[in-house]
Amino acid sequence: MGRSVSAKSSIMLRSKSRTQVTPVRYAVVGLGYIAQVAVMPAFAHAKRNSELTALISDDPQKLKQLSRRYGVPYCYSYRQYDQCLREGHIDAVYIALPNSLHCDYAVRAAEAGVHVLCEKPMAVTEQECRRMIQAADRADTKLMVAYRLHFEEANMDTVELAKSGKLGNLRLFNSVFTMQVREGDIRVEAGLGGGSLYDIGVYCINAARYVFQANPTKVSACTIKGTDRRFREVDEMTTAWLEFPGHRLATFVCSFGAADVSAYEVVGTKGHVRMDPAYEYVGELRQNSMLNGKSRSRRYGGRDQFAPELLYFSDCILTDRDPEPSGLEGLIDVAIVEALYRSAKSGRPISLSLPDKKQWPAQDQVIKRSPIRKPRLVRVKSPSL
Amino acid sequence: MGRSVSAKSSIMLRSKSRTQVTPVRYAVVGLGYIAQVAVMPAFAHAKRNSELTALISDDPQKLKQLSRRYGVPYCYSYRQYDQCLREGHIDAVYIALPNSLHCDYAVRAAEAGVHVLCEKPMAVTEQECRRMIQAADRADTKLMVAYRLHFEEANMDTVELAKSGKLGNLRLFNSVFTMQVREGDIRVEAGLGGGSLYDIGVYCINAARYVFQANPTKVSACTIKGTDRRFREVDEMTTAWLEFPGHRLATFVCSFGAADVSAYEVVGTKGHVRMDPAYEYVGELRQNSMLNGKSRSRRYGGRDQFAPELLYFSDCILTDRDPEPSGLEGLIDVAIVEALYRSAKSGRPISLSLPDKKQWPAQDQVIKRSPIRKPRLVRVKSPSL
Repeated sequence: MGRSVSAKSSIMLRSKSRTQVTPVRYAVVGLGYIAQVAVMPAFAHAKRNSELTALISDDPQKLKQLSRRYGVPYCYSYRQYDQCLREGHIDAVYIALPNSLHCDYAVRAAEAGVHVLCEKPMAVTEQECRRMIQAADRADTKLMVAYRLHFEEANMDTVELAKSGKLGNLRLFNSVFTMQVREGDIRVEAGLGGGSLYDIGVYCINAARYVFQANPTKVSACTIKGTDRRFREVDEMTTAWLEFPGHRLATFVCSFGAADVSAYEVVGTKGHVRMDPAYEYVGELRQNSMLNGKSRSRRYGGRDQFAPELLYFSDCILTDRDPEPSGLEGLIDVAIVEALYRSAKSGRPISLSLPDKKQWPAQDQVIKRSPIRKPRLVRVKSPSL
Repeated sequence: MGRSVSAKSSIMLRSKSRTQVTPVRYAVVGLGYIAQVAVMPAFAHAKRNSELTALISDDPQKLKQLSRRYGVPYCYSYRQYDQCLREGHIDAVYIALPNSLHCDYAVRAAEAGVHVLCEKPMAVTEQECRRMIQAADRADTKLMVAYRLHFEEANMDTVELAKSGKLGNLRLFNSVFTMQVREGDIRVEAGLGGGSLYDIGVYCINAARYVFQANPTKVSACTIKGTDRRFREVDEMTTAWLEFPGHRLATFVCSFGAADVSAYEVVGTKGHVRMDPAYEYVGELRQNSMLNGKSRSRRYGGRDQFAPELLYFSDCILTDRDPEPSGLEGLIDVAIVEALYRSAKSGRPISLSLPDKKQWPAQDQVIKRSPIRKPRLVRVKSPSL
């Protein structure tokens, strides 16, 4: 597989107690769309503490072209993943694989003493999430779920506004997140962890949680299958309501079969704030608020939302801090997604008893980096039409 | 009660077969907030075919001041309602009473051969709606439910856009309608037909139906009671999803305990349109659409939305046409509201088999009249904080 292990002889023996040196060396696992348009380019903005050191893919063309473009010394096939983990060239993996593979690849990394930054959703089942957390705990490696919006200014400003009391008591959250998924994309393959809740509903769930800074206690959903052949295996769209402590309500609709909308609204007893677009990683985000009869509009220019994750996660590794968004953060959303699909199937609301969280996303976690230019794609299609 | 029947001697005998002459003479029944700020002032814009001829209230001060302000010759107490209906001074009533009284006052009017324009929601139960329809049928009088947005330009433009195919196939409707209801308002009294679905949820339901031009087949809701003492008797807020033929989905949240939001969004396979504000009768309405990557924003200046109802309803009476929004239109929404509250109670979705409708709101029903100036209120408070 192109240049590989034998190309370098600096194989080090790793142990838990080793001291991490800067920069943290990453392998990007999976060279699909998000890895190509966002993760790999982000390393240019995270040089302070992060380095792209290895690529993992079964596509020799991708490995060849992308390793050349980014000057990545090590390339591996998926079969060589464990070899990669144990050779000592990398300290961390960024897992950008289909959802169904997150758990296995994360656990294997942890077991090899390698830190894990994993794309959302963390996995397909709560049980998988638990295995990932346990593996990282046992190996004393770091585990973080890539919730890029926890580091994004517009969303964290909204969190701060919600917490400030200026909206009064928060009463409801409402969100619409829709896109047109391309036929055959992994997002519509059930076996790969597809489904609208896993891919985009998880943003609505996570946003409701960081806005309310709480976990829901009861949830209900309705899925629409439709007749479009793209949605043979998974739902076309899902709507859900989530009841939060304090009699607060979050509702959302997410869809793989509708034109792009990416927005949420938070309404309190005294005012409201709307983010539209709210969840995008390309282009500007906008916040409109209405407080005491005064409307205010703020635009947040496009940013690189992936470099902040690398910078933060590497710092956690280098200073031995527990990352937040943690594995628990990822697990909670997956548990909610599972409950929602169960509810949609049974037609009954489902009560949840989710673990408490002590740390919630906040403004002090914001990291700003200028936007990247979209790179030329190598043998990959956009997930959307 | 002030000037009353005996003040005029032109008592005519009425019969079904009489020919209606212009203008149609109205009694406004109930002199609460909406009657004072919207219905009575609207007659100035509907002179072509409508005249405010009588007022009905139990408050002598209201009768005295308002009859003087608007030059209304006849005033009655509620006890004198049947007398008013039978004396021949009026041809139609505009019922602006608490929801729980709509049915009784509408049926009595029809039985006296008087046409009925009734505020939304039509009544509290589907059975009441049925009684109202039957009474009008038997008496051969006209019955219309005051859905002012069926005559409103921005909403009907949105209907037309939805029908045009420019948004592709319509997939979902999402709406937030919230306000802060004043403590003690009739909207929070269960015995008067209070509750967020009856008062404001009905707008979301009706809009979803006119946008999709169809009736839902399955509905589900969740109500939040909260701890605010205003909501001892009714829900504070309710969220609902409604499944429509063609695998389309409508969702909304309405609340009596949150800052003002009045918006809906329609998302199709190719584009989307957002109305914000969507439901207001004071001030401008705004429509934002995104079609083929092009965004467009339209503002619709404030209008008198009540005169169009009078003009249209009077024309229906004068030309013997069946009004639309009909009694059936009103009944369907009330049936949905009842099903939603039942669903919220049982925790189960409810399948509905609603009557077909042949005529749906459309652009050709738009009537434009310039806005009214808010009049000085007489012994009435705004329903909202």
